[in-house]
Amino acid sequence: MVLLEFSMSPLGKGESVGRYVSRSLDLIDKSGVDYRLNPMGTVIEGEWEEVIAVVTQCYERMKKDCHRISCTIKIDYRKGHAGRLGSKVASVEKRLKRKLKV
Amino acid sequence: MVLLEFSMSPLGKGESVGRYVSRSLDLIDKSGVDYRLNPMGTVIEGEWEEVIAVVTQCYERMKKDCHRISCTIKIDYRKGHAGRLGSKVASVEKRLKRKLKV
Amino acid sequence: MVLLEFSMSPLGKGESVGRYVSRSLDLIDKSGVDYRLNPMGTVIEGEWEEVIAVVTQCYERMKKDCHRISCTIKIDYRKGHAGRLGSKVASVEKRLKRKLKV
Amino acid sequence: MVLLEFSMSPLGKGESVGRYVSRSLDLIDKSGVDYRLNPMGTVIEGEWEEVIAVVTQCYERMKKDCHRISCTIKIDYRKGHAGRLGSKVASVEKRLKRKLKV
Repeated sequence: MVLLEFSMSPLGKGESVGRYVSRSLDLIDKSGVDYRLNPMGTVIEGEWEEVIAVVTQCYERMKKDCHRISCTIKIDYRKGHAGRLGSKVASVEKRLKRKLKV
Repeated sequence: MVLLEFSMSPLGKGESVGRYVSRSLDLIDKSGVDYRLNPMGTVIEGEWEEVIAVVTQCYERMKKDCHRISCTIKIDYRKGHAGRLGSKVASVEKRLKRKLKV
Repeated sequence: MVLLEFSMSPLGKGESVGRYVSRSLDLIDKSGVDYRLNPMGTVIEGEWEEVIAVVTQCYERMKKDCHRISCTIKIDYRKGHAGRLGSKVASVEKRLKRKLKV
Repeated sequence: MVLLEFSMSPLGKGESVGRYVSRSLDLIDKSGVDYRLNPMGTVIEGEWEEVIAVVTQCYERMKKDCHRISCTIKIDYRKGHAGRLGSKVASVEKRLKRKLKV
């Protein structure tokens, strides 16, 4: 299973791009892939093909009305590990024996 | 104000690096800078010098016993905008008129 | 057309990962997609499906013998612009009216 | 020694940001730190404080007339290794016993 974090924004649509980001989140939320939104991106979990398909879907939607798009993606594949959307944070808290800000 | 997300891991310390990541979170949590931990990194908010100082502190600690370190950083500066650790996610939810997974 | 830069490394294979990086470059070089290798990654140019296919191919090869893989990807899509592997650097040099280190 | 690749762009200055990127390259080229420009970013080599200082200088210049700035940074620290702006690419070519596109 793969954890994939990404953020995607148009260039040339002004300083505020929330409108475009929201459309991506709408697609992610409806994709059926599990995810967590954070202030700098969205982390999704699934098999490689599944998570890449979600990013591709957001890209296809955005390029309909955006002529330049920036996207950063970070992937962490770990064989035989699932449910890491929750377990990675929990593991750090367990080591530190206290709750952190999430 | 700046939002900075980063993740930092040693190379050459095996497949599990939670021990090293936890030490960074301990430093971040005690730094006084506001932050949010997610499954793929930590987002901190502050002035440029403050957030860079936190990353530098984590790097200095990690290089004490790690000979190779990978670090990715993503920065979003926006003039006159503070409190974005919470407001960016809230703004997307407001546009979509529903709660998302955070 | 899309410019996509990526780097992909195994975790848990020691501090030196050149053996695994070289296998990716072998695949990229034989893929037929145009590319430029730099000290921190490889930039490839093509349509979305083409460049994603190259990254996927490198991932499939690496996971055959690596149990944890980190990958960072940066994408710059610009409608109607091709040949940017060369033109982006040339454009900066033209503005500055001097050659830069490439 | 540290290899640091970064790219920095304004949001809200239109689709073409070459003017702002060129100003950063002018600063990098005059900084005295060794570097290589590629189509997706610039890789600089030096001690942590040196390379961070270069990025900070570019940021300070850009925020003079840009109200929103995106920046991605990737760092590879390796103890006791210098001259990697050239040696990393050469090492891959040596393994593959052929020249690659750089």
